[in-house]
Amino acid sequence: MRIFSNIIGAFAFDSSGIKDEVLFSSIEGYQNREEAVNSLKSRHPDAKELDEKELKQVLSFLADKKYFQNFYLQNHQLTRTQVKNSVKDDTLVIQAINSIDETDKAINLLSKRLREWYELYNPEFSKHEQNHEQFVAEILKNSKQSLLEKINFHQRDSMGADLSETNAEAIMGLAEKINSLFQLRKSTVDYISTIMDSLCPNIKTVCTPLVAARLLEHAGSLKRLSELPSSTIQILGAETALFRHMKTGARPPRHGVIVHHPLIAKATEKMHGKVARSLSDKITIAAKIDYFKGQFRGDKLLKDLEAKFEKK
Amino acid sequence: MRIFSNIIGAFAFDSSGIKDEVLFSSIEGYQNREEAVNSLKSRHPDAKELDEKELKQVLSFLADKKYFQNFYLQNHQLTRTQVKNSVKDDTLVIQAINSIDETDKAINLLSKRLREWYELYNPEFSKHEQNHEQFVAEILKNSKQSLLEKINFHQRDSMGADLSETNAEAIMGLAEKINSLFQLRKSTVDYISTIMDSLCPNIKTVCTPLVAARLLEHAGSLKRLSELPSSTIQILGAETALFRHMKTGARPPRHGVIVHHPLIAKATEKMHGKVARSLSDKITIAAKIDYFKGQFRGDKLLKDLEAKFEKK
Repeated sequence: MRIFSNIIGAFAFDSSGIKDEVLFSSIEGYQNREEAVNSLKSRHPDAKELDEKELKQVLSFLADKKYFQNFYLQNHQLTRTQVKNSVKDDTLVIQAINSIDETDKAINLLSKRLREWYELYNPEFSKHEQNHEQFVAEILKNSKQSLLEKINFHQRDSMGADLSETNAEAIMGLAEKINSLFQLRKSTVDYISTIMDSLCPNIKTVCTPLVAARLLEHAGSLKRLSELPSSTIQILGAETALFRHMKTGARPPRHGVIVHHPLIAKATEKMHGKVARSLSDKITIAAKIDYFKGQFRGDKLLKDLEAKFEKK
Repeated sequence: MRIFSNIIGAFAFDSSGIKDEVLFSSIEGYQNREEAVNSLKSRHPDAKELDEKELKQVLSFLADKKYFQNFYLQNHQLTRTQVKNSVKDDTLVIQAINSIDETDKAINLLSKRLREWYELYNPEFSKHEQNHEQFVAEILKNSKQSLLEKINFHQRDSMGADLSETNAEAIMGLAEKINSLFQLRKSTVDYISTIMDSLCPNIKTVCTPLVAARLLEHAGSLKRLSELPSSTIQILGAETALFRHMKTGARPPRHGVIVHHPLIAKATEKMHGKVARSLSDKITIAAKIDYFKGQFRGDKLLKDLEAKFEKK
């Protein structure tokens, strides 16, 4: 007597054929297949586990039409369950960071349009305020009426045209939507930050939520990020520059997405490489802690880094 | 005695030099230069208008340093005034239609992201509803709570993952902004429609506000549109196809932006060319009426067209 289990059930058989079986009615049965095997074992105390040489034989027993439906259904169920379970928190972070990138694109598109439109009335102010967010805020600061007054006030010296109320409304409408996209961006950053509190608090602390999200996006998942060596993390996101370096011998990239980290932004141009190297070291440690659900040490890692580069 | 006027003033001079002058203190003086000339004429009844041969002489009189500042200031003022007056209603329509195009781009970008994100939870529904606006509306139809219930209800058969409340909030936030962009689009269309009521009621009636706005955008201004022949209006916006036709002998384009007109959309594929030709005829008439501020005949033009193609 031998015992064998697969996706549709557990079977006890001897050389002549299947003698006893426990079919799984759902995917949960398959997930707890040990139980079925044990119950078969208790019914057939002499039964042993399958020898590899006998595998072909048992497969020929199972090539019976009555099992085909079971195989189909169980496989189908299993795939669906796996698809369903493949959505992890890191998938959500990746969606969210992509959403931020696309919100940025939309903001840029619409802000440029707002400026071109507004410049008909007051070209000087638009040139004066280069930052899109500030520019939109300034336009929205007060009511429509005061936009009119303001433009007409500024305008005594302006080359801009006169602005009627209908036109002001159209411009204000556009500015409001851009402003609400800025708010969407902020709330998405908060969302990422919230997910990361449970998913990867260490990486989040060491390298700010946005940089952490971009690292996850480039690595594909927390698991993959935790497996990457420090040198890879350092240039994650700078693939183009890396391949240019390999092909043409140009200078290798010093940093990928971690360039947005405040420590690198603060460092002098000459120090960028050094900071990036130390930073990616710490990120490597943080990623491993997070993936294996270790104790929170993010604050210590960050302090070490800061201490190292503030001394110099 | 001769009299001569230019941007800085009016001058009376004889062969020895300038004898009398009226300098303009602002651009209004230049705009009413007839007055200054007349006052000089009354002071010097024997004075005549400048002969062309004497132009060189008077210019040498004016090449005096004391006039330089005046030339600079008046020219500067004149340019500013012209820039200011160059903003016409057709400029606003063109800004607005560009704004619509960019809003559409932003909507597409963000809708694709919303779908990808939502598909983690309920891939089947996203595939089922292809229209972005409907899809967003469906997601927003009820409160967040019911989004959760709905997904979890649909989901008994779905491959999607389970949705927690924080995640639902992030998705709803994105959907709301997309929805408000759809509203921005609608209000911009209304704005275009309002401007057109005074700018070009005939074109607007013959070919719907959006098509009219695109025609204005491609022509550059109402003036230029009114000068274009019917055949050009027909293929305005299909420049790529036209040049391909001229270079390679491929089939010429049958219509440009007017393809979005409801009459063409309704017509059978075979009739597209004919409808486009008649339509652009009527648009040519409408544009001329609008530019020369003629009587409103847009409804009659449209009726003629509809009658012509509904019979067949």
